[in-house]
Amino acid sequence: MTEKRNRPKPRTVKGFKDSLWAESLSRRTMLERMRSIFENYGFLPLETPALEYVDVLGKFLPDSTEIEEGIFAFESEEEWVALRYDLTAPLSRVIAQYQDLPLPFRRYQVGQVWRREKPGPGRFREFTQFDIDTVGSSSMLADCEVCAAVVDALLAIGIKQDDFEIRISNRKILNGVLEIAGIDQFDSDGNPSEQAKSVVRSIDKLDRLGIHGVTELLATGRKDKSGAFTKGAGLDAKKVAVILEFIQSPRKSRREVLKYLSNLMKNSSIGSEGVEEMKEMDSLFTAMGYDDSTIIFDPTVVRGMSYYTGPVFEANLTFEIKDEKGRKKEFGSIAGGGRYDDLIGRFKGQKVPATGISIGVDRLLAALSFINPDSAQHLQYAVVVTVMDKDRIEEYLKITSELRGAGIPAEMFLGGGGIQKQMKYADKREALIAVIAGSEEFDKNSVTLKDLMLGRELLKDLSNRKEWLSEQPSQVTVPRADLIKAVKEIISRYKE
Amino acid sequence: MTEKRNRPKPRTVKGFKDSLWAESLSRRTMLERMRSIFENYGFLPLETPALEYVDVLGKFLPDSTEIEEGIFAFESEEEWVALRYDLTAPLSRVIAQYQDLPLPFRRYQVGQVWRREKPGPGRFREFTQFDIDTVGSSSMLADCEVCAAVVDALLAIGIKQDDFEIRISNRKILNGVLEIAGIDQFDSDGNPSEQAKSVVRSIDKLDRLGIHGVTELLATGRKDKSGAFTKGAGLDAKKVAVILEFIQSPRKSRREVLKYLSNLMKNSSIGSEGVEEMKEMDSLFTAMGYDDSTIIFDPTVVRGMSYYTGPVFEANLTFEIKDEKGRKKEFGSIAGGGRYDDLIGRFKGQKVPATGISIGVDRLLAALSFINPDSAQHLQYAVVVTVMDKDRIEEYLKITSELRGAGIPAEMFLGGGGIQKQMKYADKREALIAVIAGSEEFDKNSVTLKDLMLGRELLKDLSNRKEWLSEQPSQVTVPRADLIKAVKEIISRYKE
Repeated sequence: MTEKRNRPKPRTVKGFKDSLWAESLSRRTMLERMRSIFENYGFLPLETPALEYVDVLGKFLPDSTEIEEGIFAFESEEEWVALRYDLTAPLSRVIAQYQDLPLPFRRYQVGQVWRREKPGPGRFREFTQFDIDTVGSSSMLADCEVCAAVVDALLAIGIKQDDFEIRISNRKILNGVLEIAGIDQFDSDGNPSEQAKSVVRSIDKLDRLGIHGVTELLATGRKDKSGAFTKGAGLDAKKVAVILEFIQSPRKSRREVLKYLSNLMKNSSIGSEGVEEMKEMDSLFTAMGYDDSTIIFDPTVVRGMSYYTGPVFEANLTFEIKDEKGRKKEFGSIAGGGRYDDLIGRFKGQKVPATGISIGVDRLLAALSFINPDSAQHLQYAVVVTVMDKDRIEEYLKITSELRGAGIPAEMFLGGGGIQKQMKYADKREALIAVIAGSEEFDKNSVTLKDLMLGRELLKDLSNRKEWLSEQPSQVTVPRADLIKAVKEIISRYKE
Repeated sequence: MTEKRNRPKPRTVKGFKDSLWAESLSRRTMLERMRSIFENYGFLPLETPALEYVDVLGKFLPDSTEIEEGIFAFESEEEWVALRYDLTAPLSRVIAQYQDLPLPFRRYQVGQVWRREKPGPGRFREFTQFDIDTVGSSSMLADCEVCAAVVDALLAIGIKQDDFEIRISNRKILNGVLEIAGIDQFDSDGNPSEQAKSVVRSIDKLDRLGIHGVTELLATGRKDKSGAFTKGAGLDAKKVAVILEFIQSPRKSRREVLKYLSNLMKNSSIGSEGVEEMKEMDSLFTAMGYDDSTIIFDPTVVRGMSYYTGPVFEANLTFEIKDEKGRKKEFGSIAGGGRYDDLIGRFKGQKVPATGISIGVDRLLAALSFINPDSAQHLQYAVVVTVMDKDRIEEYLKITSELRGAGIPAEMFLGGGGIQKQMKYADKREALIAVIAGSEEFDKNSVTLKDLMLGRELLKDLSNRKEWLSEQPSQVTVPRADLIKAVKEIISRYKE
């Protein structure tokens, strides 16, 4: 054996984590339901490598300027490669790389992405995204379907209609507002101007800081409670007023928002184009049966200054949770996306219309377990066959394979130790049933079944403890020939 | 748009590849069947990060001595990390890291692994492994169950019983042979000796070089057809004879092999221990109903000089394929594993019994598509609703959502272009049915359905071309109200 000082410490890389079975089973249940919805919408699966060339990934990570910033990049055989930081950049590569894809190309992809950002509670450097995108269609229907599919997926995994909404805006309207306010969108190099970025960042903080905070950020700046000062966008009062009028748009119904924005944008051609696109989306949503209660228009949705060129959308869970400091807040965004007609042009030299959304699987899973902490998502209908008599191994094996043959996950206990240790094992691995067969059972040609779930429930209430120990209501002895029937009967108590 | 000289070339990293939908759908079907078998055996899922600290991974990659050799390693925040090269090293870490796991811990894990080896045809640097392991049980039943689960999984994904076998040997018997031949197993540092490694490598080549080639390699060395010389293990004639006697063991039935080995090992206590373990496995397999036709004993299975300490096994597909040069050869190994009681001790300082097997998912998928090139594994029961009249979008939308509502994957065509372009699209994305509704259909309140699969079949035979064009046997027009019924009728032609 290795000497102690030479032994490596078993530990996960900083910012990374393992998923044991409960989380893994819940995630799979959730992902399968989402996948089935997206396939129902005609999206096809795609898988791409974990590593990409750095020049292929580009510099599209939000708020990063250097290639190595925010991503895991390294040199391999004299070329820079990196772990993908999202699933959109690889999709763009795929579209440009394969000439014979069916277009419009509707694809879904679920996979890990990696970002070298500061880890924190619930913030990891490896996380799973579930993306759907339609490439090659400039129809607003493509955007609508992406949103509708997310609505259906959220309902399918068990989130109630009242607990979420899809919020939609349009980048062209934001550009219209900047135009009307007289704020240059681009600097002399054709990159988004510092002032435009600052305005967008300010709008993005409306939920958190309220209208007063945003007003400060649009003007000279804002000092927070800790005394830290954030420099403002430096807009004069007139320009601030234009932005404020925009973000204070009503959010009652899609029609009302459209009316308000239409009026606001009447002097901006790009802004009016955006309003027209939203009008079209509204009609399509209505035809598809998605009303204002799930899909709303919200001009403050901006999704950063990144590559979006038309509709932008995010899915928000609207129920309240408590933050680290115990304050109530909305659970918040679990998906975001929009139309990015210029991104693939980076490779091709010509525009390729594209739209899509990216769902944060880990946050969504956290939301599900918040909604339903005793979730049945990872309930296992599994049986542990305990070993009471080492000389009867063949009998236990037979019980085990009978169960398996009936499609019931089963295992014979493979460790050492008596009944207590074996029951503890069955509990730890969250089995539903333990089979017990000792000399008494063998004599009578019977088996004893223990409903471990019921056992756990009864034990939760300590006043039941005595009853549980004496009467054993969670335990039943049946003829050996009725094994499968009796096991199925217990399972049926828990199956949805 | 980016100027041409600045455009990145869309390309995958050398040795990496994408999976488009056909491959992705087939893989999923296969993995789900395997997963269901392993869960039936009581294995629980585990997911671990792509990155691990290099000291955690250790130096256990076959044939590597340096840490950076063969793996993708890089420095991140002053620590060396690497993409995992297998799923066993992360499992060992998990066992050592979490004190409260149920033991024996039965886990399955499916995930990508990365190796920086020379890429070649069918050889990639990123591939998927499906592992099952039982940690914390020294019972031979743990080893037997791992093998039995693989048998069941191969049958479940559609490989015929005659087309594969599990071959089993035991590291202790190999050590016994080395002992009997008088070959030192370890050098003065406690590492496997060069001579022992050379002997093991030679035995491993029996399938490829035959008995004569192996004899040369055990002695002074071997010159191949190209004239290249491989230095031999340097054994004298007597030692060579011991090895040859061992590898020429009969392989008729498990009992015969046991009898032969038992006699051969009678003067080696470690060897006899190995024979005892194999005897126990034979009895257990028999009790579990796995006879000589699927699970055989084969002393030439060595699985390298790596960390195995007891039973070693591999799963081989026995049907013939042609190699790059057109020569017939067995498809070969698609899974391998064994008992590794010392590996976790690297962290813990004490032995933890463990056994498991790793299945090469990509090779197995390749085998499946070799067995059944027209595989139905990725058949999609999907419908494309074509758009004949832009003013009727709402009608097409309604057809699409009716289909989706009935659980049938459906999409309205979102691109531009006439019927021919739309049919080409439907074919390319491998839809089963196209819905066509033009003015004629709308007038008669009907829809036309095209069975694209039948269309493709008929077109294969060119003599049918005329018939297909005139009679359109793959096409049917039904009342609008019968849409779902008629679509289901076509699907039922293809559903298993």
